[in-house]
Amino acid sequence: MLRFELEAMDPGSKARAGRIATDHGVIETPIFMPVGTVGSVKAVHQYELVDDVDAKIILGNTYHLYLRPGTDVLKKAGGLHRFMGWERPILTDSGGYQVFSLAENRKLTEEGARFKSHIDGSYHMFTPEGVMDIQRSIGADVVMAFDECPPWPCDERYVEESMHLTHRWLERCIRRFDETPSLYGYEQSLFGIVQGGTVSRLRKESAEFVASKNLSGNAIGGLSVGEPAELMYEMTDLVTDILPADRPRYLMGVGTPENILNSIALGVDMFDCVMPTRNGRNGMLFTTEGIINIKNRRWADDFSPIDPAGISRVDFQYSKAYLRHLFVADEFLGRQIASVHNLAFYLWLVREARRHIVQGDFVEWKNEILPVISRRL
Amino acid sequence: MLRFELEAMDPGSKARAGRIATDHGVIETPIFMPVGTVGSVKAVHQYELVDDVDAKIILGNTYHLYLRPGTDVLKKAGGLHRFMGWERPILTDSGGYQVFSLAENRKLTEEGARFKSHIDGSYHMFTPEGVMDIQRSIGADVVMAFDECPPWPCDERYVEESMHLTHRWLERCIRRFDETPSLYGYEQSLFGIVQGGTVSRLRKESAEFVASKNLSGNAIGGLSVGEPAELMYEMTDLVTDILPADRPRYLMGVGTPENILNSIALGVDMFDCVMPTRNGRNGMLFTTEGIINIKNRRWADDFSPIDPAGISRVDFQYSKAYLRHLFVADEFLGRQIASVHNLAFYLWLVREARRHIVQGDFVEWKNEILPVISRRL
Ligand SMILES: [Zn+2]
Ligand SMILES: [Zn+2]
Repeated sequence: MLRFELEAMDPGSKARAGRIATDHGVIETPIFMPVGTVGSVKAVHQYELVDDVDAKIILGNTYHLYLRPGTDVLKKAGGLHRFMGWERPILTDSGGYQVFSLAENRKLTEEGARFKSHIDGSYHMFTPEGVMDIQRSIGADVVMAFDECPPWPCDERYVEESMHLTHRWLERCIRRFDETPSLYGYEQSLFGIVQGGTVSRLRKESAEFVASKNLSGNAIGGLSVGEPAELMYEMTDLVTDILPADRPRYLMGVGTPENILNSIALGVDMFDCVMPTRNGRNGMLFTTEGIINIKNRRWADDFSPIDPAGISRVDFQYSKAYLRHLFVADEFLGRQIASVHNLAFYLWLVREARRHIVQGDFVEWKNEILPVISRRL
Repeated sequence: MLRFELEAMDPGSKARAGRIATDHGVIETPIFMPVGTVGSVKAVHQYELVDDVDAKIILGNTYHLYLRPGTDVLKKAGGLHRFMGWERPILTDSGGYQVFSLAENRKLTEEGARFKSHIDGSYHMFTPEGVMDIQRSIGADVVMAFDECPPWPCDERYVEESMHLTHRWLERCIRRFDETPSLYGYEQSLFGIVQGGTVSRLRKESAEFVASKNLSGNAIGGLSVGEPAELMYEMTDLVTDILPADRPRYLMGVGTPENILNSIALGVDMFDCVMPTRNGRNGMLFTTEGIINIKNRRWADDFSPIDPAGISRVDFQYSKAYLRHLFVADEFLGRQIASVHNLAFYLWLVREARRHIVQGDFVEWKNEILPVISRRL
């Protein structure tokens, strides 16, 4: 089981600086985890994740990895780390979110979720036990419980029933996880997931339930699914008041730089989101000076670095004008550069946040930097 | 004007090892030039070209760069080297080949070629003078003369008339090139292009004409356009007998590893081709053990390195099984890896060829290695 140490608490907020020790290395928190859906962070080499982005942990998607390459290949490879050539920690989601996004192509029962593959239309069943076994085969350092993630908005009764199902599934996950060994000689840790939609009463109940399981870490799921940011913060605030302080807290699928800083202030330690890579591939760059739509004409002859702060190698290697040209000419290198840059920006952001938590001036720094990095250039 | 030195001649063939000195560095020959059409070698970072591929010179396409980003932006940037962040030598083609590929969308006169942009349908005129001016704006170290490249097969009379037009255009190119300065403080050199289709009499006439111009280098154009390899070798052999030995010889648009080794044996020093990157993007890998279609099922659980010779970082970083998975899952990283690997293979091949020329056993080596690297695994 991973070890979590708190190093500093911000005096002006609930922000914390911590350290998660896994068998694949130490992760300083708060941390952002790039999303490597099928065992690849889109358009980014593993060595760029290490050398340029300085990612400390990445996320894999159980649903996608189960379908391709499949657990047989992953087991033969000796797990996902070896399969993809990545020696730092990995966290896998449980597939719950993906399966429930399949809408008509899945059917939910007490036992689990039956779904139709988006690739070949074949039918599959995910159960809490099965999903634990798959994540044992993948060999992630952090394994997520199988949960149902209700949509937003959602009928309160549905949210409540769904939450109870998630709780029953959590107990099945814990049982299966505890009775199975890790396969590749290093430890894996299981995180529970708090659900409850945007209903305070349910969020509270779910947080208390999950906290009572004494897991090595706890996640907040079912947010950032379309609800207003204020509601997301309200739920996060409420949940982090309940979750144990001595375990890492992971807010799933969040979010914009602003969402991340605000949630750090609410006591969250871990984040993941496709935004830096997905938006990067569409030409949206997060920089220390603000947000850039690189396809815009105004960059056509701006030969200044992508980001003058030089947070990654690509920032000085390439100019805004060159990057714009690549996007206009539909050259894939443009998407590669934007992906590396945006991920490096997100990692820079959480490193800076951590530094200011340790320094004790996180809130002042956040209030200063947010208007700058959120403006559109 | 660039300086070319011959370092060794192979005793068993016309192969030569040489050294081209430009203001952006020395290029040891024989050399392969990765194609960077619009100022980007597709899916490969500039730092990968340096660190992983070890490309010594890359090629840019005048036609594409003229349309996008255009000479205004390139001039403001201080030339293509600075625009794209590439400090090693660049060669630009003349746009002739691209323009003549436009078929109905171009019209040829004595003056030049009028054509319709493939991007926005706008009309443009390329003349020998204009193309020199564009290449001055791009700032390539090696500038190619504007030529007409007839198709294959082609009426002999057409080939002859076309060749004479190319010769008249060469004289106009030389005049313009000689009366214009380089724009960015380093020298540029002009290469002439031998045409004449697959007609020995015309190839001989064209080689003699181009040789008489005493240019800093000479190219063989109009081959590898669909004719049988034997005809290509026959024409190349004939032309290299006529072109001056003390100037580099560049066989344009060639080719497979086999084409390259056989043409080195005929006295060619420089090559370019989209094959390593284009075929790489389609999942075809050139390795020291043979040719791999990485999409093939047989690689699904082959966890051996992409190329056991380890000619580039990607070869050990990723396994065949992982690379296959990326192609099957349509992850762009697969195309990035295959592009870097194939280019590294091509550069490895010409480095090895050079080593064996210097050693004096080029032909034996070539006869040994060709069956190995040409077989399909
Ligand atoms: Zn209840
Ligand atoms: Zn004639």
